[in-house]
Amino acid sequence: MTDLTTRRTTAAAAPVVPSAGARRGIGLDEATLHDGFWKRMQDVNASASLQHSLDWMERLGWIENFDRVASGSTGPDRPGWMFSDSEIYKLIEALAWEFGRTGDRGIDAMLERLVDRILPAEDSDGYLNTCYGHLGQEARYSDLERGHELYCAGHLIQAAVARLRTVGEDRLVALGRRVADHVCREFGAGARQGLCGHPEIEVALMELARATGEDRYREQAELFIERRGHGALRPIPLLGPGYFQDDVPVRETEAWHGHAVRALYLAAAAVDLAVDRHDAELLAALEAQWRRTVERRTYITGGMGSRHQDEGFGDDWELPPDRAYCETCAGIASNMVSWRLYLATGDVAYADLMERTLYNVVATSPSDDGRAFFYANPLQQREAGEEAVPDAVNARAEGGERAPWFEVSCCPTNLARTLASLNAYTASVDDDGTVSLLQYAAGEYRIAVAGGHLHLRVETSYPDAGAVTVTVLAAPGSGASLRLRVPHWAHGATLERDGAPTVVEPGWASVHGLGSGAVLTLVLPMHPRFSWPDARIDAVRGTVAVERGPLVLCLEDRDLPDGAALDGLRIDADQPPRAHRDGALVTAHAVPSPRGGARTPSFGAEADAPTGASTLLPLVPYHRWAQRGPSAMRVFLPIRP
Amino acid sequence: MTDLTTRRTTAAAAPVVPSAGARRGIGLDEATLHDGFWKRMQDVNASASLQHSLDWMERLGWIENFDRVASGSTGPDRPGWMFSDSEIYKLIEALAWEFGRTGDRGIDAMLERLVDRILPAEDSDGYLNTCYGHLGQEARYSDLERGHELYCAGHLIQAAVARLRTVGEDRLVALGRRVADHVCREFGAGARQGLCGHPEIEVALMELARATGEDRYREQAELFIERRGHGALRPIPLLGPGYFQDDVPVRETEAWHGHAVRALYLAAAAVDLAVDRHDAELLAALEAQWRRTVERRTYITGGMGSRHQDEGFGDDWELPPDRAYCETCAGIASNMVSWRLYLATGDVAYADLMERTLYNVVATSPSDDGRAFFYANPLQQREAGEEAVPDAVNARAEGGERAPWFEVSCCPTNLARTLASLNAYTASVDDDGTVSLLQYAAGEYRIAVAGGHLHLRVETSYPDAGAVTVTVLAAPGSGASLRLRVPHWAHGATLERDGAPTVVEPGWASVHGLGSGAVLTLVLPMHPRFSWPDARIDAVRGTVAVERGPLVLCLEDRDLPDGAALDGLRIDADQPPRAHRDGALVTAHAVPSPRGGARTPSFGAEADAPTGASTLLPLVPYHRWAQRGPSAMRVFLPIRP
Repeated sequence: MTDLTTRRTTAAAAPVVPSAGARRGIGLDEATLHDGFWKRMQDVNASASLQHSLDWMERLGWIENFDRVASGSTGPDRPGWMFSDSEIYKLIEALAWEFGRTGDRGIDAMLERLVDRILPAEDSDGYLNTCYGHLGQEARYSDLERGHELYCAGHLIQAAVARLRTVGEDRLVALGRRVADHVCREFGAGARQGLCGHPEIEVALMELARATGEDRYREQAELFIERRGHGALRPIPLLGPGYFQDDVPVRETEAWHGHAVRALYLAAAAVDLAVDRHDAELLAALEAQWRRTVERRTYITGGMGSRHQDEGFGDDWELPPDRAYCETCAGIASNMVSWRLYLATGDVAYADLMERTLYNVVATSPSDDGRAFFYANPLQQREAGEEAVPDAVNARAEGGERAPWFEVSCCPTNLARTLASLNAYTASVDDDGTVSLLQYAAGEYRIAVAGGHLHLRVETSYPDAGAVTVTVLAAPGSGASLRLRVPHWAHGATLERDGAPTVVEPGWASVHGLGSGAVLTLVLPMHPRFSWPDARIDAVRGTVAVERGPLVLCLEDRDLPDGAALDGLRIDADQPPRAHRDGALVTAHAVPSPRGGARTPSFGAEADAPTGASTLLPLVPYHRWAQRGPSAMRVFLPIRP
Repeated sequence: MTDLTTRRTTAAAAPVVPSAGARRGIGLDEATLHDGFWKRMQDVNASASLQHSLDWMERLGWIENFDRVASGSTGPDRPGWMFSDSEIYKLIEALAWEFGRTGDRGIDAMLERLVDRILPAEDSDGYLNTCYGHLGQEARYSDLERGHELYCAGHLIQAAVARLRTVGEDRLVALGRRVADHVCREFGAGARQGLCGHPEIEVALMELARATGEDRYREQAELFIERRGHGALRPIPLLGPGYFQDDVPVRETEAWHGHAVRALYLAAAAVDLAVDRHDAELLAALEAQWRRTVERRTYITGGMGSRHQDEGFGDDWELPPDRAYCETCAGIASNMVSWRLYLATGDVAYADLMERTLYNVVATSPSDDGRAFFYANPLQQREAGEEAVPDAVNARAEGGERAPWFEVSCCPTNLARTLASLNAYTASVDDDGTVSLLQYAAGEYRIAVAGGHLHLRVETSYPDAGAVTVTVLAAPGSGASLRLRVPHWAHGATLERDGAPTVVEPGWASVHGLGSGAVLTLVLPMHPRFSWPDARIDAVRGTVAVERGPLVLCLEDRDLPDGAALDGLRIDADQPPRAHRDGALVTAHAVPSPRGGARTPSFGAEADAPTGASTLLPLVPYHRWAQRGPSAMRVFLPIRP
């Protein structure tokens, strides 16, 4: 029987606790969410996805890999990719946050049973990996480019930090320290000048330094960050050094490029470094990278990654909807970067992008029952994709149905740790005690501020409706200051305080001198709206998207009128979209049957022109696509010329 | 000193000699090209590309690999990919056709010196491969999925067939027979039930059967073709069995899919099988595949392959211009299929597509000096790509500059064999003696027909100009019949016979009773024209392409007026393109500076609208893009809404 531990409740119970910056993020325990969009996802995560992930990793032998190292029975037949250890660590991290959030003893017990399994696999010098360095395996650190050993160590360390921040020192934390100490010894300034093909160790060591107060971990992270970009890694054939960001140092980078998750994990660590080292130049470089990338290499969903070939960013303006990769993990990684930049600067734009990404990438991946997931999140599916193979490992769910598990199954556990810690991203506090509400979720917020606590109740059914009512249950002596985020799309939003609504502009709506009992109502306009792509995005020229509040909408073929074809409809852009359930109705005309009988590539002397009668098409939130089974789908709807 | 051989001149000196079909292709020696578009490319190929390829393969040790097998000094340090042997074989095939075409003794000597090198590497049982089966190497046929052993054998056999068809039996032909016999023993009906991950052996064995009259080679090819599509190969992780067409049997396939070169080599062999076996059902299936693929999965250039990830076809209508892969080898392979279908059916559509592909894919790859090549042929380049690394092996030239050699260097030698044998595709003969002129190239044609020879002179500067003058120099007794191909785009073409021009429709212009001295002039309209994409091609909605004769045109940023940006121009589609040199002029308007300072993905409440003054943009033939150095480029030009 494992030792059940006591939940620790401090403001530091959060994934990111920088040593400096414009804002402090709240701890998990400073927000208690009530029924609503995110609480429901958290509940499904807690009640289904965590056990689902555990079961799959047990079934595939990924957990047993640790037992085999402990018993000396490793060999060349090890199941799983070289990075499968990291999935167990990400699950442990999810469990740590979940226990921190809820105090659920069953969750804690699940975590401890996993620690029982991994601890005996640790080598005497703190090396912990089931794929390298043991009987019948390649030598430790013999393939830094592909081996993912430091990546796995990073995820173990992140799990340890989650534990340290939620329960304090324990055997998992001690293991994390030993693994980190091993990494520092092996890769320190005077040792092996290597780095990992997949960034992750950097962001992990940075947070371990913050959580333990031991700067040497930060120094090691800095070494890894600064070593990168000088061609130290052997390029992967046909992908080149840019694939893992070893082509240009992070502080000289203009826009994120190469493998999206790698680029974003690295950027997150670089923000941490800039903040902790008060390196304004590096921070400015990262802000510029964010702006350039968000403006030119990011989908309307917030998704990042335009290419399947390298799971990577494309060139500026290369944003094909059909081949959008938009890996779920890249959405999560994008939020890691935006959150750090938000805390550093207090700029509302970072919180805006996080909302976009949360509702349209993170929320899109899991099925309603939390037992199937999308890996890639394209914005167009021409023909209904294949049904996932039930109860089986699928290749990569990227457009058919959500699948229970993948060959490379990084997304389910990444989602799990994100949803379990989501409370931490809902609000922040300034040094002067002003609280900023960032993501609108019903609940009670009891946030430590200068002079005591600000205790708020938030009532809202956002994003179903746009009203957010904030009641001050208790405020410190002088009254509280509050900032409410008005999303960039929310033109015409109003804020009502004591009965008088006033229009507030996108950005922040600030109120001061709030005493107990004060009531604020923010009303965000939720009428569906057209969103026009920048003229430089070639792949969606001549189309328009429809958004409603923070939700990108889409058209699924199952909602088409009888006889209509998804590729045979043209939107009448003179007719604004109408409200319809949680989506919208748009007016469209059918294109006549296309030219038939082409015997050469389909190009002709005449342009096609839509002539059919008008019809109303019902759009649904993009995050719900394929929840009713495989479907053809479009976010970008061609307009009638 | 090698044994210099005598050129054999018969009608069978052609790459494809089916046992049945509507048309006979002419032999290399039935056409002698004069100065013109293709003759110049053939000359550059002969004088530069052949030696260039030889030099690179010597320098990289790919030829020495044969010496090492012969001397027993192989090992794990073998340079080159597992398929590098095939490049030597493709070069030998090119040399064989080149000697057949010209009788150049230097070319023949070059070929014989290569045969000197490869012959000693043959194992006693006819196995010939420098990557498997020898000291320090994996066992023969241990990795049929990736090993390319049968693929390499296929290219050796194709070289042997080229030799047999141009000089007759010799030691290379004998080697090809022994290699083929080995394959039949190892993979025959009663032996190993395997097949190769990359189709090629099938098309090679089929032609060897035709050239030698030995049906057992055809039977072996048939076994390989019919074995495919039943999941016999272990799928490549994340690519699946469709990558190498092992998901669906070829006769049940609807459209070509997976790796484009693989799909097309397989289809070419399947056409051969259908024809030689009089299998009308299989032929009909392949014709339907061609139509579906050409209509929905083929670029306006004739290029095939929409995806980088698997060098493969995309879904129907998935034709992104920027990420178009359009591998040079896939264009060559497409012509292999179209040529076989043309010979089988006599349908002009196949010759039309071949022209499109020859001028816009095959002609695009090599540099003017024949010493650098494009591997991929995208239709859009947003920013000027990188300059090729001079005198070095580049990753893959796919949009910057043509590169002298690649890591995977399949295209240069594939081009070499295609250009050396190009004469064979210019004309065909019916059983009744009617000659069809298919590709217009100046030269003399002395074609064997029933009752003697039809001797023609063709004078033209096509595609610079549209006039093609055909003079009958000698005809068999009763007078000759001639068919002139009128390309599908050539509306308003005229044919003049003895002074009276008449309009001829796209398809065939047929004339009969031609005696010696008769003169025909076909005039094809060469005024530039707009070509509108089918409304279902999402990636180029709201754009138009410009073609001139058989040439797709493009806009390169180096030709823009000062201060204009390639992505900031909109074509005025009401102004037809004007003739301008070998390209066109189109009228465009500038788009105002796009919205700046986006802090979220670049979508907004307003659509952009072009307002700038009009300007004239000069377009150039697409096949010439980047010949003046790296450039940004577009084939599809956005139109003013």
